[in-house]
Amino acid sequence: MMRAAIMRNRAIVVGEVATPVAGPMRALVRTVACGICGSDLHFLRHGEAVADLAREPGVTSHVDFGRDLVMGHEFCAELVEYGPGADGPARPGDLVVSMPIMFVGMPPGPETARAVGYSNDFPGGYGEMMALFAPLLLKVPNGLSARHAALTEPLAVGIHAVNRSGALDATGRPEADRSAIVHGCGPVGLAVIAALRLAGFGPIVAADFSPARRRLAELLGAHTIVDPARESAIEVWSRGNASANPAGLVQFEAVGVPTMIDKLMRAAPRYSRICVVGACMEPDTILPMIGINKELTMQFVLGYRPEEFATSLSHISDGRVDVSSWITGTVAIDGVAGAFAELGDPERHCKIIVEP
Amino acid sequence: MMRAAIMRNRAIVVGEVATPVAGPMRALVRTVACGICGSDLHFLRHGEAVADLAREPGVTSHVDFGRDLVMGHEFCAELVEYGPGADGPARPGDLVVSMPIMFVGMPPGPETARAVGYSNDFPGGYGEMMALFAPLLLKVPNGLSARHAALTEPLAVGIHAVNRSGALDATGRPEADRSAIVHGCGPVGLAVIAALRLAGFGPIVAADFSPARRRLAELLGAHTIVDPARESAIEVWSRGNASANPAGLVQFEAVGVPTMIDKLMRAAPRYSRICVVGACMEPDTILPMIGINKELTMQFVLGYRPEEFATSLSHISDGRVDVSSWITGTVAIDGVAGAFAELGDPERHCKIIVEP
Repeated sequence: MMRAAIMRNRAIVVGEVATPVAGPMRALVRTVACGICGSDLHFLRHGEAVADLAREPGVTSHVDFGRDLVMGHEFCAELVEYGPGADGPARPGDLVVSMPIMFVGMPPGPETARAVGYSNDFPGGYGEMMALFAPLLLKVPNGLSARHAALTEPLAVGIHAVNRSGALDATGRPEADRSAIVHGCGPVGLAVIAALRLAGFGPIVAADFSPARRRLAELLGAHTIVDPARESAIEVWSRGNASANPAGLVQFEAVGVPTMIDKLMRAAPRYSRICVVGACMEPDTILPMIGINKELTMQFVLGYRPEEFATSLSHISDGRVDVSSWITGTVAIDGVAGAFAELGDPERHCKIIVEP
Repeated sequence: MMRAAIMRNRAIVVGEVATPVAGPMRALVRTVACGICGSDLHFLRHGEAVADLAREPGVTSHVDFGRDLVMGHEFCAELVEYGPGADGPARPGDLVVSMPIMFVGMPPGPETARAVGYSNDFPGGYGEMMALFAPLLLKVPNGLSARHAALTEPLAVGIHAVNRSGALDATGRPEADRSAIVHGCGPVGLAVIAALRLAGFGPIVAADFSPARRRLAELLGAHTIVDPARESAIEVWSRGNASANPAGLVQFEAVGVPTMIDKLMRAAPRYSRICVVGACMEPDTILPMIGINKELTMQFVLGYRPEEFATSLSHISDGRVDVSSWITGTVAIDGVAGAFAELGDPERHCKIIVEP
């Protein structure tokens, strides 16, 4: 058995679960650092609704809320051993990161995939040990701390959102007339800001009610920050981009609560784009005629591709993005429940790292 | 004064309004044929809400519901005379069509544009005469009937929707793995079907509750028709496209009532596209997480560009699309109010042409 912060009866409790084993194609690892993701807070609160949605055709989920589940999908771990037939560049004792995906059959694909940290059978990084899919392991370059390597996953979310937003050309560079507003500077919004800046993006306007979050947005590369309680992001963007092509604007919705999509549609210039990356778990109301009148494009995005995950790690390890400011606290397993509560205050916390 | 079917106090009445004059850059024309558009029915019912939406930034509207308004924007007319300084290839007596746009100042653009048929000052084709913006006039090729030429406008809506849907490559041909479902076979859906077929599009599945509309969908080029009361369009599409790339599907929403976007999002395969062309005037509820889980792209579309309007006319005049089946009735000015009522029955009517 191993210790873990367990989701049980809709609460986070410290307890013991079975220690995973390194089966065929798998690796056994010891968790060193695991970020707490806003999705985990959502999942604790809205989990069954999320699982219901995920049962729509084309999406799969395999969660039984009556059973224990260990969350945590933003992890860096130390390789303990490979299972039978598994191998890779990392050696026991090396730090590794991995996309939090396990496959339970062949061929690897949507039908056989399970989410590490969102599956009863594959405990995530809020536990001492994990079984991972060996071919997905990436060795952490020498010298990069586990805490920083654990941010590979959230940064990859931003990289993917920017890649899918329609703002980049076929070579991965920003199109000439593009500019961006990022609504919401929680970890997802910050990842988008960092990814926009890494792509060499032009004016980046970032909006958040929290002064602490706005400071982080600047540290990660926003050119202009806005307090939406005082002025609208679109007005600030307009003032600073008088000569820009309004149709080149991409607004990123990274708040993830109802009414945001409607607000962005109303604020959007004609022919502009909205990229929905904030995970809004509830029904939301829009006015389709606003989208029609302006011929808006709305791109919903999720996750990342394997090459984006690897790019994210190299951006961090090569020092192209300074992620240290993201981390506002660390806890052990018995601190996870408290950390979930503390993350409600954006002034105090952004990313809390669990170190089992 | 001239006779017209006038929108007055939220009803269609026959009466007289001032005869337009051919001012500078304008042409005076005599209406010969004008299709009744579903948008006109919506406008009569929801006009102020539409105008409110159109007042959002980036969209302009100039309608006073306290004053008379003559609708009708799908017209073919006979040129009477050019105003001072205006000229063009058409001569008095020639049949012309035009995008229903007037400009009230220079330069022509969103700020100076007014919608002919949705403006108090620029009566549309439900009246005997119209003033049009001379540079937009297109001469109808010899021999094409005014009734068929009047369908240039609705067909252009379909051409634009397909062009903007993301289903065509840069050369205007369908991408290799594309297929389409058109939900709703009213005039807008039929125009989309015709435009998909004209673009050489692969499997086109069309869904409508009305048998008459499904027959029209087949006449205009749908490969498969579906009665959504009996089976879901997506299931029929899946059966017929077992080897196709689901991500290549584009679903066109051409019904324009609440709940449709949600239905299409639930039905959509991962990574597929939804093109919203049906004008839903009311608030609508979506589940953003469904869009996120599947990384859907939603493209809202409206209207057409000048070159698409010209292409539409040439498709009709060159016989590449047979629009005769669209027209299910003709009325004079005193028949417009009755025609508005009759258009509620999809079995009896599709497109009614007003001949003032």
